Amino acid sequence: MTTPAPFELFAYWRTSATYRVRVALNLKGMTAHERIVDLDAGEQRSEAYLKINPLGAVPALLLPGHAPITQSLAILEFLDELQPNPPLLPADLHARARVRSIAGMLACDTHPLVTPRVRSYLTTTGGFDAAAWRAWQVQWFGTGVAAVERRLATEPETGVFCHGDAPTLADICLASIVAVMRVFKISLPDTPTVDRIVAACDAREAFAKAAPARQQGAPAGV
Amino acid sequence: MTTPAPFELFAYWRTSATYRVRVALNLKGMTAHERIVDLDAGEQRSEAYLKINPLGAVPALLLPGHAPITQSLAILEFLDELQPNPPLLPADLHARARVRSIAGMLACDTHPLVTPRVRSYLTTTGGFDAAAWRAWQVQWFGTGVAAVERRLATEPETGVFCHGDAPTLADICLASIVAVMRVFKISLPDTPTVDRIVAACDAREAFAKAAPARQQGAPAGV
Repeated sequence: MTTPAPFELFAYWRTSATYRVRVALNLKGMTAHERIVDLDAGEQRSEAYLKINPLGAVPALLLPGHAPITQSLAILEFLDELQPNPPLLPADLHARARVRSIAGMLACDTHPLVTPRVRSYLTTTGGFDAAAWRAWQVQWFGTGVAAVERRLATEPETGVFCHGDAPTLADICLASIVAVMRVFKISLPDTPTVDRIVAACDAREAFAKAAPARQQGAPAGV
Repeated sequence: MTTPAPFELFAYWRTSATYRVRVALNLKGMTAHERIVDLDAGEQRSEAYLKINPLGAVPALLLPGHAPITQSLAILEFLDELQPNPPLLPADLHARARVRSIAGMLACDTHPLVTPRVRSYLTTTGGFDAAAWRAWQVQWFGTGVAAVERRLATEPETGVFCHGDAPTLADICLASIVAVMRVFKISLPDTPTVDRIVAACDAREAFAKAAPARQQGAPAGV
């Protein structure tokens, strides 16, 4: 299967949200040409990029003849509607809600707290030193992942993956958070269900190929 | 039209995310019995509530015989799939992506930064005083709303509402952010398109009835 049109993905090697889109494209058998937006050099705040995404964040997905699509969850839903197989959401309404809820716990209530723009504010205006920033990261990664662990460990719908035995939006978001935690060398104790599911994701080529360490621009030793 | 089964909504008068669900229920002609979770008293951190939502946040929607649904966007998508009319998303794939993207800019990349748990961390561990917390609120409400203003003011799909002439997920999220900004008496300059669209929302009973000031538990003068 090939992509019906040449997609462009505004991306950066490290980011959790870009990783999500890479995994979804891989699962769908689609490809996108990545255009690097160097977050460490502040390219996301250039006027040229703000025309793509006024919020100054990656990813953004560009399809010929259409406006850029921003926000990773919007992109994942779009890809799932564009190319329904394999599905990123189960068919049942309540199951879809559970998957979207777990995805939201991570992509909405965890990741936005630990983005570069928040680090920039806290370490300048906010007066945070490096240790305070790291404590902040650990606080919010820990809160989000522990809450998801509690759900996954107790809810009967959990299978090999977050919901049953095939990867969904929830797994993409879970693996994306763990991927960026690995970049920052943050590990959490007592999340055996999360660890098991992320290992199942890692074993899939669609996830493995999306890993930050394997992207253009990643420094050695990540 | 009536709700097919008695819904319960774990809610608090003030919250942006609960407002979103109230508006969606109103637009769909559904009702839910609200169960108050007093965020100011910390009830969201009680063990009883953590069984409903391990992340300790409202809203959560409970349908008889099913697990609670948490995360406002997951709830909105669920309600839209359960009761498709009137739709909260347009039919076209690219239009759906635009609406979900605008919704995400507000519900994912703005609101999670200004929640009670973040305030609690910053004003204790983070050393923020009241003025620093207010500057933080203004920073992130301002960043998110300004980015949405730029899109709405320049993209041709903008109509009476964020996308065309009927309210969608994007309007619900936009109005929800402005609703909580009003509670905190934060106003932003130079957002004429946002202001116009929020006025169009306010004029609809489905939105007006969901306003924080009209909910059980709201203090006088909000």
